[in-house]
Amino acid sequence: MTVQCESWVQSVALAPPALTDNTADAERLTGHLKRRLGVGGLRIDLATLGDLPALLRDNDYRVRGILFGAGDAWQLCAVTADDPRPVLGLAVDLGTTRIVVSLMDLTGGRVLGEDSLDNPQLAVGPDILTRIHYSEAAGGLTRLQRMVIEGLNPTIADLCRRNQTHPERIFLMSLAGNTAMTHLFLKLTPRWMIREPYIPVVNRPGLLAAADLGLELNPAARLFVFPNIGSYFGGDLIAGIIHSGLHRREETAILVDVGTNAEVVLGNRDWLLACAGAAGPALEGGISKIGTMACPGAIDRVLIDPATRRFELHTIDDQPPVGICGSGVIDLAAQLFRAGMIDIRGRLIPDACNGRLQMGLNGPQLEIAPPPAGADRQGLAIGQAAFDSLIRSKAAMYTILETITASVGIAPRDLQIFFVAGTFGAFIDPDAAVTIGMLPDLPRECYHALGNSSLEGAKQVLADPQVLPQIDAVRDRITYMELNVNQDFMNRFSAAKFLPHTNPELFPSVARGI
Amino acid sequence: MTVQCESWVQSVALAPPALTDNTADAERLTGHLKRRLGVGGLRIDLATLGDLPALLRDNDYRVRGILFGAGDAWQLCAVTADDPRPVLGLAVDLGTTRIVVSLMDLTGGRVLGEDSLDNPQLAVGPDILTRIHYSEAAGGLTRLQRMVIEGLNPTIADLCRRNQTHPERIFLMSLAGNTAMTHLFLKLTPRWMIREPYIPVVNRPGLLAAADLGLELNPAARLFVFPNIGSYFGGDLIAGIIHSGLHRREETAILVDVGTNAEVVLGNRDWLLACAGAAGPALEGGISKIGTMACPGAIDRVLIDPATRRFELHTIDDQPPVGICGSGVIDLAAQLFRAGMIDIRGRLIPDACNGRLQMGLNGPQLEIAPPPAGADRQGLAIGQAAFDSLIRSKAAMYTILETITASVGIAPRDLQIFFVAGTFGAFIDPDAAVTIGMLPDLPRECYHALGNSSLEGAKQVLADPQVLPQIDAVRDRITYMELNVNQDFMNRFSAAKFLPHTNPELFPSVARGI
Repeated sequence: MTVQCESWVQSVALAPPALTDNTADAERLTGHLKRRLGVGGLRIDLATLGDLPALLRDNDYRVRGILFGAGDAWQLCAVTADDPRPVLGLAVDLGTTRIVVSLMDLTGGRVLGEDSLDNPQLAVGPDILTRIHYSEAAGGLTRLQRMVIEGLNPTIADLCRRNQTHPERIFLMSLAGNTAMTHLFLKLTPRWMIREPYIPVVNRPGLLAAADLGLELNPAARLFVFPNIGSYFGGDLIAGIIHSGLHRREETAILVDVGTNAEVVLGNRDWLLACAGAAGPALEGGISKIGTMACPGAIDRVLIDPATRRFELHTIDDQPPVGICGSGVIDLAAQLFRAGMIDIRGRLIPDACNGRLQMGLNGPQLEIAPPPAGADRQGLAIGQAAFDSLIRSKAAMYTILETITASVGIAPRDLQIFFVAGTFGAFIDPDAAVTIGMLPDLPRECYHALGNSSLEGAKQVLADPQVLPQIDAVRDRITYMELNVNQDFMNRFSAAKFLPHTNPELFPSVARGI
Repeated sequence: MTVQCESWVQSVALAPPALTDNTADAERLTGHLKRRLGVGGLRIDLATLGDLPALLRDNDYRVRGILFGAGDAWQLCAVTADDPRPVLGLAVDLGTTRIVVSLMDLTGGRVLGEDSLDNPQLAVGPDILTRIHYSEAAGGLTRLQRMVIEGLNPTIADLCRRNQTHPERIFLMSLAGNTAMTHLFLKLTPRWMIREPYIPVVNRPGLLAAADLGLELNPAARLFVFPNIGSYFGGDLIAGIIHSGLHRREETAILVDVGTNAEVVLGNRDWLLACAGAAGPALEGGISKIGTMACPGAIDRVLIDPATRRFELHTIDDQPPVGICGSGVIDLAAQLFRAGMIDIRGRLIPDACNGRLQMGLNGPQLEIAPPPAGADRQGLAIGQAAFDSLIRSKAAMYTILETITASVGIAPRDLQIFFVAGTFGAFIDPDAAVTIGMLPDLPRECYHALGNSSLEGAKQVLADPQVLPQIDAVRDRITYMELNVNQDFMNRFSAAKFLPHTNPELFPSVARGI
């Protein structure tokens, strides 16, 4: 299905009605647009119809139609005078932790500004499971939904104000998020997503009226919500595929969203295979007591001189260290391993750790950052359990990669393009991730961080009408592979629980580096 | 497009989800229905989605889906438990004067009961034009729309009560009316319909949410509004075509809605030609001061003994005569003509009228009914002007029939099936109408009164899902012919201004009868 338009906003100059051409106002406009776009049906709301006769006549039949849709489900959302006022769209990445919004000019597809806010549902709980349980209590679902809307509305209004405009000018919105966040946003119960056989309420929410959700945009604004494949493979990943272009490439590539839950898509323009599996909290700042999300003061880079074993730490915004985030933990483990301070099983080697080892309540602790001089605050230290947890997480990640590639007869090292999705992915140092054996030993230039691919995908929907039909096509083309934790999986997992791996031949660059 | 279902209500028993079949609740249900019905897309509202997970699980995945739509625009309006509670529909004939509603069981297509009410907009004015002018004043459109809704809601509630049910059980509604009434119902301005080039706001209102209009039915109820061809050819006529089956017949037939505005459709299963023209108020009770709508006491049948010239009157409900309705006027003129009391130009013949002629302010008056004995009420009398008016109206009607048939190379007398639509049409005596030359001189059995064909068409939409796609097809197949009042038309009109016609050969049965 090719859509013959480059923008959701279409300026039209209609032939005025005549005795010999007495088509009604609505069909005059929709007929013109249908012919221009080559679409079969074009819906128009009663509210839009009501304003149409005066609008057409006051503007000599020159107006702008704001469209949204794909396939046979097209909507003429609004009609405005063909004047210089902007017609805006809003792309939203609805993250579990952070929500990012991007204000766009729909006529040119240009980004006008961005803003973000903590997901207000963090007040209920940082993790999805806590929020789902909360949603099951009376009124819980409604409260969770309102929290997000009431957080979004002022953020959107502020963003508009800073751009000398008003939310009333926002006619289209596109939103990508994981399946649970999307369900809470739509006030649909996520209750059955966490119980076998893990069923969402809806796979394709499609086009909705933004006002129905309490969003304060133009009253006619429509909202596109990215579809999901299931409870554990959400619209954020579909947005990532769209952003990476994985579905259009001839060569087989892989896209990985690294987190507590690892989501993986393998494929090319002919086929797409997906799976998701638990990797554990270690990769997302959930490691030990000092683990933290990426925030000012979080240690995100670690360098250890192999000769002196001196630590060089980098913190976000160069603030005094307050904890260590996911990418920092991977860096730390890689550097400790290269400096010979942990062995191939991830055990701290006391002799190599010199004065950095302290005895804590739960065994030895490795000091990462000393207490600030004169401060009553403690230094930052990390125990053996945290490294054990990291090793399990990275082994799970690598095993998932091995399993999905094996299912199509290739090995992780055969991949030539490796997309790392998500904000966290943007901060992972591929070299460190390869060193600990979390990612395969590919030439480092094969790795591409996609950044906030969820937001980027949502933006593409607004910038280019060709994208929307691709999304449904991609969703339908994905074969979802259930990860069966069978003997094969367990064998691979056991082999991957070493740094970098039981089989060092899989990681030649790491062997060379030591 | 064949729809593979016999009812808008579909009972389904879904396979419960499993680890190997983790489709979401919504797509599990819509996918099943799409396969069963052979339709491409099936929309489902957010409100319906919200209730779906509990509904499916509480009922072991056995539910009823209530559908509505055609082509690529299908809606899963509501989902209910598969229990014995009725699923109802409401068919509405939205007349300028009278509104008739019919309550139907959607599972069997059976009519449960009917009711009617005066169109509450009569308070503003009896005719369409007055209401359109009223709608142009500030707040006028909103008031006119509310009047109808506020009249309909209690009527529907009453009708439900009498049938031991509740409006909440009404999920589908179908409404046919002329273009102006439909526009006022939808709160769309009819302003441009009465100004050249006579443009409605919309031709195909399509499926709407009943709640958006203030209708108190099930909150999820959908409303289908019959499409129109233009300002002067409305959905009531399309409903009439559907009811008559004109569009499915091999032989060419005609359908005529006789009224102030005469609407005509000529055609068969291959082509449909339509036109509309003003016939004047004489045919709809608008004749002189004693003209009335069909109501108790209205004279609807007149018999004059040619020998004694004695009048025999029949009134509706056998009440004392209060006026004369449209069918009565046609009867009266035909009988006066047969009794030799008016001449072929429709002039009263004083010598033949005996003592029935009185001199009124505006010339001679023919007494129809004497004053009741002892009453201070006057008798009913009718003047020459009324007969002149009737002659113009019947001549216009016949000229329209001649013009449309001539455009396809036939004459009115070539027709073998002649449908007379509308409530008024049901009361016209074809013999009388032929006698005055209003309708062509066909064998009387060729005439078929369709009754309230607007309501019948609306009922068919609810009873049979095959009908909805036919409606759009019929609408698109109709060629609308503008009636140009050119020399040809005027010549025909002049020739038709005689009883029955200048050319008596066109009316052999009338010549024989005299």
